[in-house]
Amino acid sequence: MKINRYEDISQIDREAKKDYIDRHSAFVHCAAEAKKGEKFTVKVQVGDEYAHPDDFDHYISYVQLWNGETFLTEAHFTPGVLGNMAGQVEVDFHIVPLKNMKLTAMAYCTKHGLWQSDEVKVTVTE
Amino acid sequence: MKINRYEDISQIDREAKKDYIDRHSAFVHCAAEAKKGEKFTVKVQVGDEYAHPDDFDHYISYVQLWNGETFLTEAHFTPGVLGNMAGQVEVDFHIVPLKNMKLTAMAYCTKHGLWQSDEVKVTVTE
Amino acid sequence: MKINRYEDISQIDREAKKDYIDRHSAFVHCAAEAKKGEKFTVKVQVGDEYAHPDDFDHYISYVQLWNGETFLTEAHFTPGVLGNMAGQVEVDFHIVPLKNMKLTAMAYCTKHGLWQSDEVKVTVTE
Amino acid sequence: MKINRYEDISQIDREAKKDYIDRHSAFVHCAAEAKKGEKFTVKVQVGDEYAHPDDFDHYISYVQLWNGETFLTEAHFTPGVLGNMAGQVEVDFHIVPLKNMKLTAMAYCTKHGLWQSDEVKVTVTE
Repeated sequence: MKINRYEDISQIDREAKKDYIDRHSAFVHCAAEAKKGEKFTVKVQVGDEYAHPDDFDHYISYVQLWNGETFLTEAHFTPGVLGNMAGQVEVDFHIVPLKNMKLTAMAYCTKHGLWQSDEVKVTVTE
Repeated sequence: MKINRYEDISQIDREAKKDYIDRHSAFVHCAAEAKKGEKFTVKVQVGDEYAHPDDFDHYISYVQLWNGETFLTEAHFTPGVLGNMAGQVEVDFHIVPLKNMKLTAMAYCTKHGLWQSDEVKVTVTE
Repeated sequence: MKINRYEDISQIDREAKKDYIDRHSAFVHCAAEAKKGEKFTVKVQVGDEYAHPDDFDHYISYVQLWNGETFLTEAHFTPGVLGNMAGQVEVDFHIVPLKNMKLTAMAYCTKHGLWQSDEVKVTVTE
Repeated sequence: MKINRYEDISQIDREAKKDYIDRHSAFVHCAAEAKKGEKFTVKVQVGDEYAHPDDFDHYISYVQLWNGETFLTEAHFTPGVLGNMAGQVEVDFHIVPLKNMKLTAMAYCTKHGLWQSDEVKVTVTE
């Protein structure tokens, strides 16, 4: 199973490649620290500076959120959720951590396969 | 297929029944108006004043968001996402409306079946 | 939530309507009796005499299998699984019943909404 | 993302390890050849000689079927679908191939993470 990864696009010259990599990459956005037993918001977003199409034959069909090797939750999309316009797929999960987490997001593009985010460490304190 | 619905719990006497109905009911929370072609946040929440368990054998396993008869998106959960504590399942979808919407959420409890929210009308303007 | 149901197409005159109803309807195909604790095959099929398109903007995106009010399992599809040809969506689940079941399938068409099968009773014996 | 793989259990001495690896491994079972444009059955099974639990806190929650880097379909399970007995999770997808395929299955155990099957090549002829 080939899994694609984000590359630092500031190091890439070709505009088309910057766009391709950025708009497919999954990102985990959340605070670096969480309180044990309290709700904690984790945004999973696909694309940062660039936007992915939401066409019938080319869209992000799902994103998943993992803590290490543990699957937490996922969202499934149908084309048109972004109005068939290009846009960053975005979903906020509200989870309740009990101990430190290593969060990773996965995103699947119906034309360009599976993409894994960088891991985001969250320190959970009492 | 039996589909359960919210009832106004202020009209219900028995505390156990208030709790049962409220903690299973799906709610759509969003603004009443949206701009056409711009991101619009829709929160799907299960339970309002009361909280549902997140036990291995008793949890909310999925929520769906519909616009009229059109399925937009859904989130799947595994037990433990709320830390195995009681809590309102909550997920924010960011969609891009093009015309007026009638949003409905569905939620499934692994012990108490399928629950449908009230419909929320959203006026979409240019 | 509008849920569509199968109608006996032999009682329908208009060919287009026969086709529309049949190709969207979900069907549960299985034996009428099962052995307690042994694997039991349940086929969920969408369409009986007529075939549904598998186009990017018009396909069956999921089927679910329910036992009464209990969700058992579901399959998600992306367009192209039937080769972008018309065909009956079909998936066989192998479940292990412990007591009598009342099986219902749900199917979702991305253009024509949610369809519920007739209920199929299964007698489970020791 | 750690992805576990099958190992040839005949080469493993320790019974507990044989069991652990076999019962978690995903397998793709299908014919080696298919006719272009005709239905083709692909069984995804988890476990071969050994059976995985179907406990509330320990079960196979989903399987996916991929063709190379293209996601085809997936099935989600809730605990109890196998009657809360140990058993091989098993689902048959009926797909319509148009050209040669390289099929891979993924399976997720709620305690022991993600498992990838060996790739199965299918030759598709006119």
